[in-house]
This record gives sequence, structure tokens and C-alpha cells, in this order.
Amino acid sequence: MPVNLPLPQAENLKPVAGVELGWAEAGIRKANRKDVLVVRVAEGSTVAGVFTRNRFCAAPVQVCREHLASGKGIRALVINTGNANAGTGHLGLANARATCDALAAKLHISTDQVLPFSTGVILEQLPVDRLVAVLPAAIANAKPDNWLAAAEAIMTTDTQPKAASRTVQIDGKTVTLSGISKGAGMIRPNMATMLGFIATDAAVAQPVLQALVSHAADHSFNSITIDGDTSTNDSFVLIASGKSGAAIDRAEGPAFEALREAVTSLAQELAQMIVRDGEGATKLMTIRVEGGKDVAECRQIAYAVAHSPLVKTAFYASDPNLGRILAAVGYAGVDDLDVDRVNLWLDDVWVARDGGRNPDYLEEDGQRVMKQAEITVRIALGRGNAEATVWTCDLSHDYVSINADYRS
Amino acid sequence: MPVNLPLPQAENLKPVAGVELGWAEAGIRKANRKDVLVVRVAEGSTVAGVFTRNRFCAAPVQVCREHLASGKGIRALVINTGNANAGTGHLGLANARATCDALAAKLHISTDQVLPFSTGVILEQLPVDRLVAVLPAAIANAKPDNWLAAAEAIMTTDTQPKAASRTVQIDGKTVTLSGISKGAGMIRPNMATMLGFIATDAAVAQPVLQALVSHAADHSFNSITIDGDTSTNDSFVLIASGKSGAAIDRAEGPAFEALREAVTSLAQELAQMIVRDGEGATKLMTIRVEGGKDVAECRQIAYAVAHSPLVKTAFYASDPNLGRILAAVGYAGVDDLDVDRVNLWLDDVWVARDGGRNPDYLEEDGQRVMKQAEITVRIALGRGNAEATVWTCDLSHDYVSINADYRS
Repeated sequence: MPVNLPLPQAENLKPVAGVELGWAEAGIRKANRKDVLVVRVAEGSTVAGVFTRNRFCAAPVQVCREHLASGKGIRALVINTGNANAGTGHLGLANARATCDALAAKLHISTDQVLPFSTGVILEQLPVDRLVAVLPAAIANAKPDNWLAAAEAIMTTDTQPKAASRTVQIDGKTVTLSGISKGAGMIRPNMATMLGFIATDAAVAQPVLQALVSHAADHSFNSITIDGDTSTNDSFVLIASGKSGAAIDRAEGPAFEALREAVTSLAQELAQMIVRDGEGATKLMTIRVEGGKDVAECRQIAYAVAHSPLVKTAFYASDPNLGRILAAVGYAGVDDLDVDRVNLWLDDVWVARDGGRNPDYLEEDGQRVMKQAEITVRIALGRGNAEATVWTCDLSHDYVSINADYRS
Repeated sequence: MPVNLPLPQAENLKPVAGVELGWAEAGIRKANRKDVLVVRVAEGSTVAGVFTRNRFCAAPVQVCREHLASGKGIRALVINTGNANAGTGHLGLANARATCDALAAKLHISTDQVLPFSTGVILEQLPVDRLVAVLPAAIANAKPDNWLAAAEAIMTTDTQPKAASRTVQIDGKTVTLSGISKGAGMIRPNMATMLGFIATDAAVAQPVLQALVSHAADHSFNSITIDGDTSTNDSFVLIASGKSGAAIDRAEGPAFEALREAVTSLAQELAQMIVRDGEGATKLMTIRVEGGKDVAECRQIAYAVAHSPLVKTAFYASDPNLGRILAAVGYAGVDDLDVDRVNLWLDDVWVARDGGRNPDYLEEDGQRVMKQAEITVRIALGRGNAEATVWTCDLSHDYVSINADYRS
């Protein structure tokens, strides 16, 4: 059961002029489910992305980087689930390119105007023939108000589709943003999440769009973790069609800031949806580390806490066994940390004071907070002004069941 | 059920002349179980240790470091379970010192000749009165052939006591070594394990003993992980009573090498016992990384694989979902890794060749190995001659149950 994650309603997902989405069923891993998504992007749009830093990055990620670098103007995205096309060597690269070739031919564009994405099992070859065979069907049903179906088409172990929209006023014009994401395991994005796509009808110059996508990723998909496993396929892409008439040419000023806020807030919502629907998740934990010397050490400590299986199982059990959090802070690798300055809160409950148990802390107060579905862990280091926030979920029996059974 | 871990038999555990062990029941956390161990060490013995690098190191660890540095000659160890005396501030330090004071008074030695150790729950004060009250009982039943009872007295979530012995011929004399260890969760030692003690009747000069304990720790307790959580209390101590007549004064030469081999091999056995009895463990995995530029990067990759919840659950399920191993290799943080040179074996089965699936690999072969209780994962990086080995266990439903219920 996802944590406070209502099903998205189609009527709340706003079409973005210049962007059409179509799906198909290719039976790549399982029959009778949407597993292919084609996104068509109007001519003149800009597109920017960030991708996994895993050295074993998947074939489609390599092709995405090449095609974005070509500067031709991206006109279409093609996404499949059921197979990650990772650890597949030269044949995997050829299959990713063949997919782009096939879609380009049907849309009368060039191959390097197509971005391919895959997600699913690693170390198996992509059944490219089955994928190519359904591209005409996906093109045929592409339309602007297909965001919910698009979110469904990219699900793997997700229990719910993930999609959201925003509108923002820029220079007197209404700018719309809609986005989708997927992912529930192998989630510890390093540059971007499993798959996230946001489209807006603002007009955004390419370097500005790249700045936007990096900023939004750092404050959303790059700040979540479920199991600490950085995927081979993480990709987050931002599309700007320009159809609203609002134009942003510089990475500064009020128009840029308004759009950055909207993109970042939408990306955060989509990223948190991934954690809320994390494999086996029963709780959403916000790990906030403040008072650090720099953001890097705050993130390092936040991730140590977020990845600790002992911390995660204690939250699952609603057991205020909070020494486990201090242990994780201690082994996070900040070698000159003065633990006598460390303070710890669970929501409003002051648990550890100056490195030890707060004399006023009552276990019943900790217990009360631990029973909640959403909990903020706040760790103050007392050595500077930097801060960072990471979102994660607990570790439950269902996480083990899901990952012990995933392929069977 | 521990993995291939027979119960130690008392008759196989050899007394070490000059070392006596006595236990008691203090009811520190639970009634009617051995939870205090006193180890008496003959005058003239040398003692050396390595301790956790967790910044939140426990009060007894701080006191151990002080007392070893005093150079007075350690004459006794006192160990309690049920409470880690960590995250306990100044009162925790005072309690650790009070324990040493009480034991020293009873044994007519000085306080800094006592080393204290604690293991159990973090962030709660040690019930020092209950601990001190049973010290006379522990002293009264101390004897040289108490190694099995000693191993039982330091257990927490361990399902079995862990103890082993060795003999080695040095300069025509028979040298005996016996050791005990404990730990089943919060196991990712960084300098030493939860608790490990080895005694020998060799005579070993203090700096030589320190070299021995560091070497043995690096190749045993510092190469295991269960859940990646580095404890606040890890301690590994080596005691040399000198009663055998064999004397080792220099950290080189055949006598030193014979003793180093015996200590390291015993420490490895004790460390592997911890993994075999890891919380919820059903399998023992040996992760061997070779062909690295240096040992550090081999260890970094081995630990990334050993800590991946996705890898660990796949082993639990006997599912040869081996792309998860490549993903972990890829995100381990070796930024210039050329994945096209990476090869992967599961025991004798060649799974990945030059960064992709080995064309000759058959899933049924992977399946056969995955069903075993002990599995070696061998990863060849193809960039140098360094190598490292890490031992770990799988992640099962029982791990979650044990840690969700630990305090309740």
C-alpha cells in the first residue's frame, strides 16, 4: 500500500500544447499490459535531460546522450518497460538504435531526433522486433490528454501510476507543466531517477533548460532513495514546447525563477510519489540534516541514515529504537564530526541533545511520532549553516518478498 | 538457521594458560541469561586491540583506548550484553569507569588495568549497579576451560555461541590460541567487529601484538558485512599470556609469520561465524574482486555488491537475477571503470563476459549455483593486480522480523 498516494485523476492532468502521448502493448515481458510509450514533441521544442552515473549505464542512456549532443532538435521519445537493455553490450546498443531508426522512419524525422528509454530486467537482450511492431499503434493513439495512460505505460513494480500537473503565470501568460515518473526499487538516483518526464509549453532556450533540469533533479529525484541501488537506466527529461507564448531566454530573473520553482516543485512531487510507492513502503521519512559545513556532508549523513537497514526496519516496526540513527550519523564518514554537538528530533520531539539522550525525552513521545505514516527526522550537526533533505521509505517484509519474486 | 555453523563443542576449545573466564547473570536486559563475562589475564601478558571508527563510539570503547594507552599492563576484561552504553554522554563514561573501578578493587589491580566492553541497545543508560553486583560471582567461577560459556555470555541476537581454537608449533613449542566472537546485526566493522577476543599463550611484545591484531582484523572482521551498519561498539582484542614459552619479539621472521597465520586464520573463522549467523541469514556469500588497481577500489566494489539489498534478496530467493550485481559494480564509485573489461563468475559459472552477458551462459547453470548455501561471486575488473575478499549473507524476511522486533 503506497503511503498517502491517491490515484491520479485524468481530469487533473493538464495537456501541454505541442506534446502528444501514445501507448501500446508489445508483450515485452508480460502480455496484455501497456509497456510502450511514444511521446511526440512539436517542431521547435527544446529538450534537456540528466542521466544515471552508473558506469554500467544502459544502451538507451548512451544513445540518449549521443542524440541530445547532436543538437538536431528532439522530436520524439520512445520508452519500453519489461527490459532495461543494460549489460547487453554491442547488440544492446544496436537494438536501441534500431528502435530509434524505426520510429524516425514512421515520423519522417532523423534517427538522432529520437530519445530511447528502457526499464526492467538487466542482462537480457531487448526483444526489439516486438517493440518495433507496435510503434504504429502507439503513434496512432497519441494525443495531448493521454498523461494518465502514459504514466501507466511506464510502470514496472510500481503499484500506482505517477503523474501531476502545475500551472504558473509568467509574463502574463499561463504556462502549463505536466509530468510522469516511475520506479519503486533500485532507487538511489545519482543524477536522475529511474524515469521522469516533465513537459511545459513555455519556450526555454536550450542552456536555460539544461540548468532547469539539473536544478530540479538535484532537489527532487537526486534526493530520494529506496534501497540505495543506483539504477543503470535513470533518466529525467524536461521538454519545453513553447506553445504558451511565454519565453525564457536567460537563467536568471523573475520569469526564470517562476518556472524553476514550478519545475522543481513538480519534480519533487513526482520524486516523492516514487518513495511513497517504494517497494514494500509503509512510511515516508524526510531526513533533514542541518548545521553542516557544506551540503555534501549533510547529504552524506542523510543518505547514511536513509540507507541503514536497521533504521529502516525500526521505522517499519514503529519502534523508537533511535540510537540506530545516531550510529548511522557516526559511521557516515564525516571524520571530524564532534558528536557532542549533535542534536536529533523526530518531528517535534527532541530525542538526543548534545550527543546523548535528551534527559527530557520520553519514550512515549517517540512512540507517538513513530506510529505516523509520515515522519521527519531532523539532525542538527552544530558546525555550520549548510543543510540537505533526503526522502526515503522504511524496509518491510514486502520489500523482501517483492525483490525475491521479481523475475519469477 | 545459521549457514553451515555447527555448535562449538567444549572439548574442542583449548584452554590458554594464563587466561581465565568467568560469567554471571545480571539481568541487564533480560533475566536468567548469561550477560556478564570477566576475563582474567596473568601478570606479564600483553594485550592489544582495534576499535570502531564510528564517531558515536561507545563509552567503553573510549575507556578501552585510554586504558590501553596508559601502558600499565591489562589484567582483566569485563563485558556485558543487553546495553551498549553508547549515546549515553558523560554519565555513560562515568558508568564505564565505575565498572572498571569495581572490578579492579575486587582483583587488587588498578582501574586502568581493566578493559570494559558493552553490546546491546544504544541510547539507554547502563544499569551499572546490577552489573557490579554480579562481578564477585563471575570472578568466583572463572577458569581456563570456560571458553564455550564465555562465548554464550556475550551473545545478543546471535542464535549460536561462536568460538574456535588453533595450535601452532613455534620454535619447537606448542602455542595455543582460542577465541570468541559475537554479532549478528549492525555488522559492517570498520576497524574491528562487534566483539571479538582471541587469547594465545605465546609471548608477544606489545608493538608486535598491535601489528598482529591490525593485520588479522583487516583480513577477517574488517572484511565482513551483514547490513552495512557500523556499530558504535566494535572491538577486537588480542591477548598474549606468554605461558607457552614461545616468544615473538619482532614483526618479521618465521615465528612471527607462523603466529600471524594462526591468529588471522582463527580471526577469519570467528568473523565468518558472525556472517553464517547473520540476522536472518540463509546463505554465505564470498565476494571476491580481483584485477583492480588497488585494494581500496576492490573493497569498495565488493562492499557495494555485498550491501545491495537487491543483490541480497536475489540470493535469498536463489534467483540468478545477476544484472543486479553488475549494477552494483557500476555504482560503486570507481569513476574510470571500463565496464567492457568486467567479467563475472558465480562459482565456476562465467556469467558476464567483457561487460555483457556471456553468450555461453545458461540460466540453468546460474540457477544451480544460486541454490547452494555457500556461493562465491568473483568479479574481475581487468585493470590491475590488486584483489580483496568480503564475506556477507543474504537479506531475508527474518532479517526484517528480527530487527523490527529487537527491542519489543
